[in-house]
Amino acid sequence: MSLIPASLPALSAIGVVETDVPDADIPRRRRDIVSDIVLRPELVEGLQGLEQYSHLFVIFLMHRSPPLESLRVHPGHDSRNPPVGTFAMRTRNRPNPLGLAVVDLLRIEGNRLTVRRLDAFAGTPVLDLKPYDHYDVFTGIRVPEWSNSARGRATS
Amino acid sequence: MSLIPASLPALSAIGVVETDVPDADIPRRRRDIVSDIVLRPELVEGLQGLEQYSHLFVIFLMHRSPPLESLRVHPGHDSRNPPVGTFAMRTRNRPNPLGLAVVDLLRIEGNRLTVRRLDAFAGTPVLDLKPYDHYDVFTGIRVPEWSNSARGRATS
Repeated sequence: MSLIPASLPALSAIGVVETDVPDADIPRRRRDIVSDIVLRPELVEGLQGLEQYSHLFVIFLMHRSPPLESLRVHPGHDSRNPPVGTFAMRTRNRPNPLGLAVVDLLRIEGNRLTVRRLDAFAGTPVLDLKPYDHYDVFTGIRVPEWSNSARGRATS
Repeated sequence: MSLIPASLPALSAIGVVETDVPDADIPRRRRDIVSDIVLRPELVEGLQGLEQYSHLFVIFLMHRSPPLESLRVHPGHDSRNPPVGTFAMRTRNRPNPLGLAVVDLLRIEGNRLTVRRLDAFAGTPVLDLKPYDHYDVFTGIRVPEWSNSARGRATS
């Protein structure tokens, strides 16, 4: 078995999320939220050509997540749902509080990207932007029953 | 404008990639590669219910990436392609060397997940696993012309 590295190099924020939507409203309004991602000005060159994509992945750090207490939780905080492992959910309750969203890219102006569907709080550090491409699209996928009813994560 | 945080908390590896495929063959064989992800044994509980999904996101650290030299590169290392920003590509040449792949989950045995399509070298630290759900699927997306011909990233 390969060794699991004990420590990793630190990552840094490439930018930050700006939105007027209060934290508490983010999960519920997820599909309609329009947010800005403000990139470090010195990274603007890295955006070249990104406007040719309709959709992006945003990887962010859920920096206000509480310390991990349990590796299993009830989906939707509903005790009628059987407990599920953190890796089987998109909860922020996870060993590394990484967030991932597929967003619609609405526009890019300088170092400011405007996107729809980013379920990240204002002030969230952004770690990476990646184009969403045909090889990321899988139809006919299988998901568990409890997923469709999980609060704030309704299917489109 | 929000402040972009100067430093972030360190992340840790939740596991590591095991594969017999040599590094040089990974991009070309991407769609057929079968790899294992070996999780830290103490995190096994976090996998509960994951087997009900057919596809997963794997977020990993491209730990052997060289230091970032340029924010723009020629797709496919082909100078006939116009240079494109690092955020408009899936290249490992990026400020934070995070990798992201949608993989087929083939099986889970204890702390070992077997997956297909993970384009990560043997020994790669894994940072997170997330279920791939209906809200991640967008059809009718727009991508640039150069994307389809980019080496090692052919569409399925």
